Amino acid sequence: MQYTHNFNPTISDEDIFSEIVREKEDIGYYNLPFQDTAPLKEYAKSVKQSNIVVIGIGGSTLGTYAIYKYLKHSRKLDKKLIFLETTDPIDIQSKIQSIDLQDTLFIVISKSGTTVETVSIFKYINSLVVCDKTNTVIVTENDSKLNRYAQINGMQVFEIPKNVGGRFSVFSAVGLLPLAIVGIDIDELLKGAKKLHDAFFIKKDDVQERLLKKARFLVEYKNSFNINVVFSYSSRLEGFNKWYIQLWGESLGKIDINNTRQGLTPIGIIGPIDQHSFLQLIIEGRRDKTVTVIKVENFDNDLKIPAITLEGLEELDYLNDLEFSSLIKSQADATIEAIQNLNDIPCDVITIDGVCESAIASLMYEYELLTSLCGKFMYINTYDQPGVESGKIILKKKLQS
Amino acid sequence: MQYTHNFNPTISDEDIFSEIVREKEDIGYYNLPFQDTAPLKEYAKSVKQSNIVVIGIGGSTLGTYAIYKYLKHSRKLDKKLIFLETTDPIDIQSKIQSIDLQDTLFIVISKSGTTVETVSIFKYINSLVVCDKTNTVIVTENDSKLNRYAQINGMQVFEIPKNVGGRFSVFSAVGLLPLAIVGIDIDELLKGAKKLHDAFFIKKDDVQERLLKKARFLVEYKNSFNINVVFSYSSRLEGFNKWYIQLWGESLGKIDINNTRQGLTPIGIIGPIDQHSFLQLIIEGRRDKTVTVIKVENFDNDLKIPAITLEGLEELDYLNDLEFSSLIKSQADATIEAIQNLNDIPCDVITIDGVCESAIASLMYEYELLTSLCGKFMYINTYDQPGVESGKIILKKKLQS
Repeated sequence: MQYTHNFNPTISDEDIFSEIVREKEDIGYYNLPFQDTAPLKEYAKSVKQSNIVVIGIGGSTLGTYAIYKYLKHSRKLDKKLIFLETTDPIDIQSKIQSIDLQDTLFIVISKSGTTVETVSIFKYINSLVVCDKTNTVIVTENDSKLNRYAQINGMQVFEIPKNVGGRFSVFSAVGLLPLAIVGIDIDELLKGAKKLHDAFFIKKDDVQERLLKKARFLVEYKNSFNINVVFSYSSRLEGFNKWYIQLWGESLGKIDINNTRQGLTPIGIIGPIDQHSFLQLIIEGRRDKTVTVIKVENFDNDLKIPAITLEGLEELDYLNDLEFSSLIKSQADATIEAIQNLNDIPCDVITIDGVCESAIASLMYEYELLTSLCGKFMYINTYDQPGVESGKIILKKKLQS
Repeated sequence: MQYTHNFNPTISDEDIFSEIVREKEDIGYYNLPFQDTAPLKEYAKSVKQSNIVVIGIGGSTLGTYAIYKYLKHSRKLDKKLIFLETTDPIDIQSKIQSIDLQDTLFIVISKSGTTVETVSIFKYINSLVVCDKTNTVIVTENDSKLNRYAQINGMQVFEIPKNVGGRFSVFSAVGLLPLAIVGIDIDELLKGAKKLHDAFFIKKDDVQERLLKKARFLVEYKNSFNINVVFSYSSRLEGFNKWYIQLWGESLGKIDINNTRQGLTPIGIIGPIDQHSFLQLIIEGRRDKTVTVIKVENFDNDLKIPAITLEGLEELDYLNDLEFSSLIKSQADATIEAIQNLNDIPCDVITIDGVCESAIASLMYEYELLTSLCGKFMYINTYDQPGVESGKIILKKKLQS
């Protein structure tokens, strides 16, 4: 007998882990926690401007925004961070009108160096203010055309390593440079990422086992549960949700080596707001969703519901003297209990320590690892995005004609 | 022979339409375009404060935010609108710190009158500033406990009709009161809603046929395409996307009369930002999504990419002299073409006229009609939300113990 072709069955946990260890040689994001941050901190210290405008889109802004949004009200930041990331003219105009351009540093971020949105907006900025090495810094690949532009104009460049994809670049200069400038502790960020790195690769606290199990479940049950809901109980995690959606959607929406379409659909919602919106669909709708609830253990905030009785509303006096941080945590617990009582919605809970650099970084690094693991189980290339090229070609043709 | 039980097959377009016409007698939102706005406008004119704070959650804020976000940069509004809608203490604190509470009108909105989040926040506000009839107005049902509180304190009340559900209440006082106060033309809003009402019920411009066809398609193919993506090409539509997600998810995620779980999962994304995020999943991922692209025909904005050459980036000079509004429209068209070329992703396009009251109102009324139609095809009660009650009971027990 002779055989041609093979099926590719789901591989074992050990094989997946070995493949990730092998992949770590080529894929850059894994090792970003170990970089030298001195040049970034030195540049950050030298910045005099009060407004920091990041011009970028997608992977060039989402991770930075996630961390900034999570921390900005819990840190005394003396600079304002603004993102110019869309071609919507009303959006561009309203953001620019809100700042003094003479007191602004522009950080132009594009991995390829020729992102249409980024270059369009940067050109527009050039018509409003002289952009030179005193107010413009570039983050790009070392051989991009944007890098050439920077060299010609003597502008400082921070490099995005070739093997770090945009959506995995938050712990490169892409995220660290703007965050360091506004006053976020980037060493604490990397410490948080490293904590997860070590726990996964050096096998601590069952992190490796837990993530392997979770990835295997999500992929093996992908036909039953094609939607993954992240239900974050803090408005501060809104940026994280958006970042997760890009990471998950763009990494896992692929055609696999067996030529079948893969993909898990990410949804990010915010509690308690979306208890009044999306929760009904989770509870009574079709069983096509897994749910991951993210709770914040310590809000480091003692805002309280005062012991005031509103005449007519006495029945709500049981809320009196309750801290808002306790209330939101109880709301999360009630939602978790309601979902788990149903017994047919896969649900896990991640509790992050607090509103600090290391907590959000650990969470983000964990999601990067989880994405890589799911990609391996799916036999896809987690790190490319061939599906968006066709639209770019059509756009270019439209505009050039 | 004898038979018991019947199957309930999908019903005809004519029957659905008759049922909607019958439902219009009981369900209040259909007729909101015909209300008298004089009392709302009169109250709005009397408001002296510069800051308008809406305290509410879910259906009490999402529609208002959708319209405000869409129009605020295109109208000269002299008052600022702020939403307090979550129990996240850091969110509450940072928003309150940004305004002068002595120069603020509080609009407390709760249909039931006993929404935990709303009453908690309002209690907290009471500890910061005296709330009385000079700075507080109530929007609620006529027999709620919040209404009693308002009567006791001599505060003005605007009523939410019993037969208007929270998520269908944007064209009641819930949305119209705050919008009128900040300077949005609420008569133009109702005109836009009425335009869709008339086109649907009086059969103009094929609106009835188109919506019936769309609803039938979405429901009949719900097992293949359980996810509905709204891809809005304007950052101004971010609020609309959130409102749509609540409307769709909470209305359609139900158990039907045959005791089977129904539900279509709404996703809202923003172009061109999410071309760099979610588009890859749409293009190469599993075929489990329908896509509705929303384009804005007229941005009424001539912001232009200047004819500047950046040395090194000459290849992007084809963008020179292009208006941003043309660029974003071309980006939408390129995405539509890329999706339609694939031939296996159901995709339709809605082009709204401009950044004006009537355009956004027509769009929202259309989505309300579409939701009602899908609910009819699914044999569910579109207007209740029994699935979220269990969590509320668990929360109350937790807090009272």
